Amino acid sequence: MKPFMGEDFLLSTETAKRLFAACKDEPIFDWHCHLSPKEIYENETPRDIAQLWLSGDHYKWRGMRGVGVDERFITGDAAPYEKFKAWAACLPEFIGNPLYHWTHLELQRYFGINEPLSEKTADAIWEKANAQIKAGGFRPRDLIARSNVACVCTTDDPADTLEYHKLIAADDSFQTKVLPAFRPDKALAIEAEAFLPWLAALEAVCGREIKTYAALKEALLERVAFFAEMGCRATDHALTPVPYRRMTEHELEDVFAKRLSGAALTPEEAEGYRTELLRCLAKEYARRGWAMEIHIGPMRNNNTKMFRKIGPDAGFDSISDGEVAFKLSRLLDSLDAEDSLPRTILFCLNPKDNYVLGSMLGNFQSPEAASKIQFGSAWWFNDNIDGMREQIRALGNLGVLSKFVGMVTDSRSFLSYPRHEYFRRIICEFIGDLVENGEYPADFDTLERIVKDVAFGNAKRYFGLKD
Amino acid sequence: MKPFMGEDFLLSTETAKRLFAACKDEPIFDWHCHLSPKEIYENETPRDIAQLWLSGDHYKWRGMRGVGVDERFITGDAAPYEKFKAWAACLPEFIGNPLYHWTHLELQRYFGINEPLSEKTADAIWEKANAQIKAGGFRPRDLIARSNVACVCTTDDPADTLEYHKLIAADDSFQTKVLPAFRPDKALAIEAEAFLPWLAALEAVCGREIKTYAALKEALLERVAFFAEMGCRATDHALTPVPYRRMTEHELEDVFAKRLSGAALTPEEAEGYRTELLRCLAKEYARRGWAMEIHIGPMRNNNTKMFRKIGPDAGFDSISDGEVAFKLSRLLDSLDAEDSLPRTILFCLNPKDNYVLGSMLGNFQSPEAASKIQFGSAWWFNDNIDGMREQIRALGNLGVLSKFVGMVTDSRSFLSYPRHEYFRRIICEFIGDLVENGEYPADFDTLERIVKDVAFGNAKRYFGLKD
Amino acid sequence: MKPFMGEDFLLSTETAKRLFAACKDEPIFDWHCHLSPKEIYENETPRDIAQLWLSGDHYKWRGMRGVGVDERFITGDAAPYEKFKAWAACLPEFIGNPLYHWTHLELQRYFGINEPLSEKTADAIWEKANAQIKAGGFRPRDLIARSNVACVCTTDDPADTLEYHKLIAADDSFQTKVLPAFRPDKALAIEAEAFLPWLAALEAVCGREIKTYAALKEALLERVAFFAEMGCRATDHALTPVPYRRMTEHELEDVFAKRLSGAALTPEEAEGYRTELLRCLAKEYARRGWAMEIHIGPMRNNNTKMFRKIGPDAGFDSISDGEVAFKLSRLLDSLDAEDSLPRTILFCLNPKDNYVLGSMLGNFQSPEAASKIQFGSAWWFNDNIDGMREQIRALGNLGVLSKFVGMVTDSRSFLSYPRHEYFRRIICEFIGDLVENGEYPADFDTLERIVKDVAFGNAKRYFGLKD
Repeated sequence: MKPFMGEDFLLSTETAKRLFAACKDEPIFDWHCHLSPKEIYENETPRDIAQLWLSGDHYKWRGMRGVGVDERFITGDAAPYEKFKAWAACLPEFIGNPLYHWTHLELQRYFGINEPLSEKTADAIWEKANAQIKAGGFRPRDLIARSNVACVCTTDDPADTLEYHKLIAADDSFQTKVLPAFRPDKALAIEAEAFLPWLAALEAVCGREIKTYAALKEALLERVAFFAEMGCRATDHALTPVPYRRMTEHELEDVFAKRLSGAALTPEEAEGYRTELLRCLAKEYARRGWAMEIHIGPMRNNNTKMFRKIGPDAGFDSISDGEVAFKLSRLLDSLDAEDSLPRTILFCLNPKDNYVLGSMLGNFQSPEAASKIQFGSAWWFNDNIDGMREQIRALGNLGVLSKFVGMVTDSRSFLSYPRHEYFRRIICEFIGDLVENGEYPADFDTLERIVKDVAFGNAKRYFGLKD
Repeated sequence: MKPFMGEDFLLSTETAKRLFAACKDEPIFDWHCHLSPKEIYENETPRDIAQLWLSGDHYKWRGMRGVGVDERFITGDAAPYEKFKAWAACLPEFIGNPLYHWTHLELQRYFGINEPLSEKTADAIWEKANAQIKAGGFRPRDLIARSNVACVCTTDDPADTLEYHKLIAADDSFQTKVLPAFRPDKALAIEAEAFLPWLAALEAVCGREIKTYAALKEALLERVAFFAEMGCRATDHALTPVPYRRMTEHELEDVFAKRLSGAALTPEEAEGYRTELLRCLAKEYARRGWAMEIHIGPMRNNNTKMFRKIGPDAGFDSISDGEVAFKLSRLLDSLDAEDSLPRTILFCLNPKDNYVLGSMLGNFQSPEAASKIQFGSAWWFNDNIDGMREQIRALGNLGVLSKFVGMVTDSRSFLSYPRHEYFRRIICEFIGDLVENGEYPADFDTLERIVKDVAFGNAKRYFGLKD
Repeated sequence: MKPFMGEDFLLSTETAKRLFAACKDEPIFDWHCHLSPKEIYENETPRDIAQLWLSGDHYKWRGMRGVGVDERFITGDAAPYEKFKAWAACLPEFIGNPLYHWTHLELQRYFGINEPLSEKTADAIWEKANAQIKAGGFRPRDLIARSNVACVCTTDDPADTLEYHKLIAADDSFQTKVLPAFRPDKALAIEAEAFLPWLAALEAVCGREIKTYAALKEALLERVAFFAEMGCRATDHALTPVPYRRMTEHELEDVFAKRLSGAALTPEEAEGYRTELLRCLAKEYARRGWAMEIHIGPMRNNNTKMFRKIGPDAGFDSISDGEVAFKLSRLLDSLDAEDSLPRTILFCLNPKDNYVLGSMLGNFQSPEAASKIQFGSAWWFNDNIDGMREQIRALGNLGVLSKFVGMVTDSRSFLSYPRHEYFRRIICEFIGDLVENGEYPADFDTLERIVKDVAFGNAKRYFGLKD
């Protein structure tokens, strides 16, 4: 029996251990996350481990709800200590769940606490962890630096002023690069209630009225230019479903005018708008060498009652199951046919789409970049041992694993970086098995190069990160 | 090499063996099956092992057809001995199929016969098994008692008089509870040919005419109350596809009147009716603390020729592949928004839906019950080692495995109880691996509590089974 | 650590090794491939290993594009040696990809070269391999004979004259049977641009005009009769999506006339035509005892730019994800209901369909053949260790693995036969694990019979191959 989450956690062969040793100290390039640049800039010491862990992490909230915990101890008005205790009491129930490993990786790596968290150990860990937090080393920048993070790409709206990015960039004392990523989801969601307020924000940041589709495009391209000045290399788009419906400029102006008039759009009108605006932006990304991330598959805010109480991103999302292949193919091809397909990273939330995406890549590769079209790492509900293994196997079978740009945290928490370690252990175990089983030669020069590349080098090259 | 289906069948680690020892003697709560209350009441000695095994088990029929056996030896007029011989000759072909294990578990546990069944051993086993049957211990209640079953929930139509349930309940000599479960599928299938005859049966049992939708609802709620008196705690619904189309009471009356008039309904009308009647019933289940089981995914009676010859449930069903996520989310949310979502157990037949259902749970949990929304165990075509492992892994990754209400037989055979043992071995092996690999602490108090809960305790609490 | 692709490659248990020893020398029946009968007849010595490997293999092209190789070294005008070097440099990147194993199986089995191919070893292997090619034994018929192939079924259009099949059949010196397979895809693709030219070709080969749907059917049945004379036993159909829309003969004549007039058909018209023509052909296959292969799932020619440059079958295809179950069920049932369902082999490209197809089989079995309805082996993007294992497990769980007609190369390359060895190793490992784990008895008479049957005997009987 192996010790609980010991040194060789998830590594069962000598080859796997050797490969993990080779890549574990590579820097982290967290090219997709939801960290707050404001919090990074303000760099405040957290009040306690309850704040660090439980104040915003809807993965944990969801887990607690599954156990049957009262909402008062989750997002309600219970005291931080009470919430921590409720969380600790849940922990043993998370057998087979990534929450169990994430929690203990965080306790081990940041606090040096190796005992399992449970109702019994909760008080001692509460004391120990809070004492350490008070002693220092747990501010956002401390945690980022302790995690050996070379670069963080936050997720930012086109109307964002990026003022905190400016302030962070101006501060020489912080070594990690903090770059914006361009996420125009609100621009694409023309039928949403939030569209007109968002448009007003864009008008404000651009300092002029936007009354036509042409003006909208101009404003967005201006923001792209501004993001580029701020070091942006990545973009993100939630596309569920993937849109593909071609429209003329004339039709687009009509749709835009209709929306401004307050009239409701048909689904076809919204899809046409979404298709063409995305195509317009994608061409600009291609021109600038940016990467286009596409996230497919969430079905959000399923619980109306709780949405009204506590809003979005609160643990009430799940996985959708629509068709993906045809429209995604047409969208990418329409750009490729105009020599305007940017580097693209395709993520799916529904594992049934692994083979659809994994085989889609090969349709649009080009010498511009090694694996210009990428299959993004296992994400959200798949961000667990099984999900990562499945993504790695699918990519290995269908694409070029050695060129994989690897893991992202996709997280709102400054404690999430051990997920990179988790991923590195899993891929080293996978490759280790290939070698031990005689499925790949024991050529350690190549093997170590590959695991280091997947850990950091590939992403660095793919996004053009400067040293 | 391990012995064939020996003591440690499916258990490869010391931890797995220890966990199985801890839970193997827990009682069985078979909260979803298709046993006949009439047969339980009448409690007749079967004629021979052919009758016990082959008279109604369409899993076995299907297997034999795949080998190429003539229908005469399956559902035809061949003698029982001939059918048994034909079955025995097929057995070795079922390598990698759960039929192979089920058959030998049944031979081992009920007959003490450990040799593999094949054409060669058929005669000896025919003699041995039939002699034992004649000697006693193979009547329905014997088999249930020998299997340590605390409670059985049969599957019953709202128009059923439950007369055999009454007779069984009145008989103090039988310790196992036999409760009805409410399955209003015929009430929901308004477009089916069988609807009007079913309605007549409901009228008969209620003793009055049902000429309006309002009257139908009233009659069904009356039946719910009657089932409740009879100890009912569970309901079942086959929903392929899941309906979600809202309708007003006025529209529902029109649809009902149209159906009574003999006119054909549009698919939209049938879906609207199905949605609203199900919602109406679900609210009543919620009020009574009943559990709502939802089975998604079968495509039934694919073979027209054989359906005409031998009817439904004869081994001509397979797996459908429609979209599930959106309408299921809307249906559950529409109830939750009215504080009327009952405890719900979601089953999928198509494994592509495992992650859709596993992630759906988390949208609607509440402190009413530990894991109020459950992901039902691997079922029918997935009721095999791989299917169970996949369901367990999905639930572990996405939900709270320790609160799982566990296995059901879903069977028409009194010999199916070893499937609970099969399941327990599989989950003990799964958890054993986690512990042996250092993925979960070797805290056997917690581990043994979990496997016992999944074997019996969780279901007992979830359904509110009294001691 | 096992040696790289040594004698026991993919075999980890003694049982697996013993079973592989029992079946490895069985002949190969390659009942579905894309070999060129012209090349088999002309039997030319290849110029070099670049021609053998890289001149037509779009799997390899696709892999190279994923690494980022310039198209010049893939399908462009680079010299053969340059292309080989580019390929060799890519090899180490294909970790976890079947290309890695296929390449080295081919080097080992045909060239006796055991060292891994890479940039470093490229020159030496180029010299060694080319010297061997020059020395002889690498012409198409040499490779087929060296691979112990009893029979090859090529894939042929109904309008094909089969002249090379005639020439091969007339040549007594070649022991392997080379039979045509009937693939009427162009006849079914009525809406395609290529339809009218194809029809002209059919008119030419039949020596008369085809101006009506009735005449088309007559012409095709005439071709079926001709193919039968030439020894045909198998047919193939790419059905994405599976059509099912019934039409009368009168409607079919209208659709056909409309197409001849040059007008565009509606999707419904094309689907109706496709359904009924396929049904018509299927009845004829049933009458003749032919097998009907159905391949579901590719989405072809996704890259418009490259399609214009280098045409179809160039590595720009991927996996689609539409619904399959309902229409496939209706199509098969419509034939079965008329006692006209031929032996049918269902292949899916999207692994999400494994359980749909695996469970569909059981709806239509009959004593005409052992497992008359078959689940085809893992194919194209699934033709890798994981894909084969998944298909084998699904078939084992849902059907009758021992009656499986097994592997096909589906290849355009004369070097692909080691994929049968790959498959045999994988299924022996799978069955070996069952036995070693005590899940199946160690009855080696039965076990060896099963692996030999899956390797060759089942296919021989299923297709009615004469000795």
